[in-house]
Amino acid sequence: MSIYSETNAQFIHGLTNLSAILEKAATWAKENGKTEESLLTAALAADMYPLVRQVQISTDMAKRAVARLADIEAPVMEDTETTIAQLQARIQATIAFMQGISDAQLDGDDERPIVVMAREHELRFTARSYVYKFATPNFYFHFTTAYDILRQAGVPLGKRDFVGAIF
Amino acid sequence: MSIYSETNAQFIHGLTNLSAILEKAATWAKENGKTEESLLTAALAADMYPLVRQVQISTDMAKRAVARLADIEAPVMEDTETTIAQLQARIQATIAFMQGISDAQLDGDDERPIVVMAREHELRFTARSYVYKFATPNFYFHFTTAYDILRQAGVPLGKRDFVGAIF
Repeated sequence: MSIYSETNAQFIHGLTNLSAILEKAATWAKENGKTEESLLTAALAADMYPLVRQVQISTDMAKRAVARLADIEAPVMEDTETTIAQLQARIQATIAFMQGISDAQLDGDDERPIVVMAREHELRFTARSYVYKFATPNFYFHFTTAYDILRQAGVPLGKRDFVGAIF
Repeated sequence: MSIYSETNAQFIHGLTNLSAILEKAATWAKENGKTEESLLTAALAADMYPLVRQVQISTDMAKRAVARLADIEAPVMEDTETTIAQLQARIQATIAFMQGISDAQLDGDDERPIVVMAREHELRFTARSYVYKFATPNFYFHFTTAYDILRQAGVPLGKRDFVGAIF
């Protein structure tokens, strides 16, 4: 497996763990008389994205990373989720898209150019530098922050939920 | 460069960004009449590690990952830091250790066994699965949580500080 196929597998694994974490959050909310909305709108700071955006961006980072590496279009998703069930559907659709990409589509020259538009700026990478300097840190940033928001809200989670099944 | 050398470079890059983030935190604390202690003891939940531990563990995850991959001993560091300057020294010592490991030391069979003791449990990996399933998510987990704690405390930081210089 190339580093590109490994990255795909690694992000699918992370999204699977994020899905399980959200399932625990939904159960906890129900058992403790909290609304899902109170969780989805929770943020760590007034100028940070709330949980719903952190989950949306986690899926976006994952699907766009592998789409760019495979040089195909990622499915567009409207950012309209207002329930955990809707976020779960988004995660499952993202995983299904990613699982449908073959190793052959992901493999290729380490030096092939990858261009990311960040606001007005063009960020120019090679496939390899894109994986290590952009895709991986950004994916884990939003996934971890989603976890951190839920931990702060009181959902009983541990590092094991974040790392998931290792074998 | 092998994925092992890339991982070393990636974690050094992350620790460099963490150092710059802590520098901004120290400056912010001074300018806003906050004590460094109030930042270092801040946590996102009562049963989560405070900032000082998140930084310590970020360095531990990084140094232990590359030490295991190179099959050498990582330097032992006492967890006694009480100031940002002391954490900066720890980060610099960690980076110096990691920079001293050659690509040749890190390279090797993807299937070579890596064993991690997690409390009472032995986690058994191959070098390759260790990078993707343990070292990478764990490093970014603690680094992101350190960033999140400082964002919540009010330190003016942005995603750019986390991702750092890309080129």
